[in-house]
Amino acid sequence: MNPPKDIPDLVAARREEWLEELSEFLRIPSVSTDRRHDGDVRAAADWLAERLTNAGATEVEIWETAGHPVVYGAWRGAENAPTLLVYGHYDVQPADPIEEWTSPPFEPVVRGNKIVGRGTADDKGQLYVHIKALQAWLEIHGSCPVNIVYLIEGEEEVGSPNVDAVVRERLDRLRCDAVMVSDTTMFAPGLPTLCNGLRGLAYLQIDLRGPNRDLHSGMFGGAVINPAETLAQMLAACRDEHGRVTIPGFYDDVVEVPADEREDWAQLPFDSDAYLAGLEVDALLDTGGFSILESLWARPSFDINGLLSGFTGEGSKTVLPATAMAKVSMRLVADQDPDKIADAFEAYMREIAPPGVRMQLTRTHGGRPWSAPREHPILRAAARALQRGFGAEAVFVREGGSIPLISTLEELFQVPTVMMGLGLPDENAHGPDENLDLDNFFSGIVSSAYFFEELATCERDG
Amino acid sequence: MNPPKDIPDLVAARREEWLEELSEFLRIPSVSTDRRHDGDVRAAADWLAERLTNAGATEVEIWETAGHPVVYGAWRGAENAPTLLVYGHYDVQPADPIEEWTSPPFEPVVRGNKIVGRGTADDKGQLYVHIKALQAWLEIHGSCPVNIVYLIEGEEEVGSPNVDAVVRERLDRLRCDAVMVSDTTMFAPGLPTLCNGLRGLAYLQIDLRGPNRDLHSGMFGGAVINPAETLAQMLAACRDEHGRVTIPGFYDDVVEVPADEREDWAQLPFDSDAYLAGLEVDALLDTGGFSILESLWARPSFDINGLLSGFTGEGSKTVLPATAMAKVSMRLVADQDPDKIADAFEAYMREIAPPGVRMQLTRTHGGRPWSAPREHPILRAAARALQRGFGAEAVFVREGGSIPLISTLEELFQVPTVMMGLGLPDENAHGPDENLDLDNFFSGIVSSAYFFEELATCERDG
Repeated sequence: MNPPKDIPDLVAARREEWLEELSEFLRIPSVSTDRRHDGDVRAAADWLAERLTNAGATEVEIWETAGHPVVYGAWRGAENAPTLLVYGHYDVQPADPIEEWTSPPFEPVVRGNKIVGRGTADDKGQLYVHIKALQAWLEIHGSCPVNIVYLIEGEEEVGSPNVDAVVRERLDRLRCDAVMVSDTTMFAPGLPTLCNGLRGLAYLQIDLRGPNRDLHSGMFGGAVINPAETLAQMLAACRDEHGRVTIPGFYDDVVEVPADEREDWAQLPFDSDAYLAGLEVDALLDTGGFSILESLWARPSFDINGLLSGFTGEGSKTVLPATAMAKVSMRLVADQDPDKIADAFEAYMREIAPPGVRMQLTRTHGGRPWSAPREHPILRAAARALQRGFGAEAVFVREGGSIPLISTLEELFQVPTVMMGLGLPDENAHGPDENLDLDNFFSGIVSSAYFFEELATCERDG
Repeated sequence: MNPPKDIPDLVAARREEWLEELSEFLRIPSVSTDRRHDGDVRAAADWLAERLTNAGATEVEIWETAGHPVVYGAWRGAENAPTLLVYGHYDVQPADPIEEWTSPPFEPVVRGNKIVGRGTADDKGQLYVHIKALQAWLEIHGSCPVNIVYLIEGEEEVGSPNVDAVVRERLDRLRCDAVMVSDTTMFAPGLPTLCNGLRGLAYLQIDLRGPNRDLHSGMFGGAVINPAETLAQMLAACRDEHGRVTIPGFYDDVVEVPADEREDWAQLPFDSDAYLAGLEVDALLDTGGFSILESLWARPSFDINGLLSGFTGEGSKTVLPATAMAKVSMRLVADQDPDKIADAFEAYMREIAPPGVRMQLTRTHGGRPWSAPREHPILRAAARALQRGFGAEAVFVREGGSIPLISTLEELFQVPTVMMGLGLPDENAHGPDENLDLDNFFSGIVSSAYFFEELATCERDG
């Protein structure tokens, strides 16, 4: 067999080997939201540092933080060329409800053209693409057209509480001309996608306490206020019958999306019947006249993420529970501010909480919304790279999720972020049987490698 | 030491021995709501049968049912004397939330004058009183003034689904002149109490399913209906701003309590400030002008017993949950019918359930309300026995809980039920650190023994 002649050739030749590397990474249960996995999170950081070195990064360091470490790596062999910062995260969501997985979440398996396991799409698989892209350049050409800096954190799934400070302390190591993030999705199979907007997030936990102990519902029911019922009433009061969130001031800072962008969204191949069928639901929220995509990308949302109170086991326990808990989050769009929205929610809850219960509110997560102009030369360069790597024209979308650090990097370095989504919408990030399409993984490596070249050209010519 | 000369003497002499017997009983985790404890429930039945034999019962049998067995025992040596049927249950509630117990629930300990452990008050401790009362008669007098039949089931905490059929199949073995149940509470310490009314119960589980899988709340939030939110809205719609249950027809069959009984309740030593302070709450439900006791004894109630949806662990998982579950129960008063009320609830839920979610309703538990006239000679006999056993005048109360079999026994044998409560209101039946006052346990044994005598006299003279 001849040696690979170019990057696509090399990627094809290394398919099995790189897939096994990715599987090794996925087997480490680096669940950042659960302290019992602290050792695994550390092991994932160590593993990644070793892999960066093997790929050809010459500066590889593990930066300690107040929480989980940040993995840093750099290759700086491209004199007078721009520097690209690749941001990603090696931590993953918890696996529960674990009983809904068809194979163990941390024992990745290939089924058809998919690799299934926690972290495949979000974000181990996607970030690994950019490590292999550097390796491909170095193996084929002995060099890379741009300098590459990797900044890979371990706390994205808990709201990135520490990476921001790390970045601000090491500006000299991280200075760059563009940021690359792959932690979003392609709009549809075969449609390479760049994302130029993300919603922000305000996430809170509500804890209500009624009586000082669980009570017998026969002996106390009808006199004592039930905190589970109070919680239901308070949560129900967050939306009106037209689907609008009723938290006072919630919509005050929402700005409209440019008309041309909305028009382009309307042209995207989106089948709302298939969307409902894919979810097996017969109706959606009343979105007040906004399209589904507008609702997801350009409108704020309110969701209950968790509820817990009283007896939840098999059978019937006649308890009047002492406590009730809800986890609640709001997705935000420009120019909503997560602190201001959390303040508004908290004020509303305090206003409507009745006597007879005591309330504790905890802010567990927050992030600002982000958007970028579609016309920026670097975003155009990324679109060309995707066209070459996937053989199809790239589309611009927004996404409903949050990546808190992006706003910080943009503010610090005044550079655009390229969000090259390589997951697919049905790959169940955060849910059971999370998976990643292997063609997108390997075409992603090729596209990333092409982007290095396009970025060098665009910056030289621009 | 002289041999005990009478029943109080004997009970005093056997204190430590009988307490250790009770502790043995309490150590068997006979949780009927949880199939993993099936073996323990069986072990409790076997233990009890052996103890009945040791106490002097001459017919002791374990009757199989479709669920957990019924323990039967009888002593029939009192010719031409009435027969008393003692009904109780050897199954217990689950121990969770287990982390709120200060000692392990199935390792009973004596603290001060209390024995602490699951089942102490409800109902192992209370039923054991009547077994020791027979033993006391036989040991002191070689005989007992009435015939005694024990009917002790293992499924009271799951709504007694099988004992009813067992009773109807064995009427000849169970025929009696009065029923005795100790599964309620004394009104206050030092105040011996007979209960002449119990609320009924309708208990249902609601399961809502929205999308076919847990979703990323960023990627889907704002378009997809969140079943946790729908559940909150549906539960919140069950009560209006005046505290009234809004289920159509809910109050239709509620009958008023006799005026003299209400007046007596108003004379009971009830301190509403102390009630609130004991629960550490600063307000109660709006009861629409009914007193607290009236609300608990003579008015129907609506409670959420459990809530579960989405992510309930530590931290923040941004999930839009696929499912949401609530356990809901309604306490009923005469003449409400549990099936009719469950029908009304189900119809209301189906009416208000929005499109976008699928609902499943499961009826897990039901029981009719019950009440008895306070003037019945047998209830008066019981009051005299308590006066002698406790040295204080007995009061009549009602209770908020349910004992489904009582209605059946009354219907079948046309005899009154004596509900001699020996627990105290703060002994936390169904909650953590359930306990029983030992003075009430031992005075209860003496009172039960006196009642055998009073019942014989009253039937002979009546």
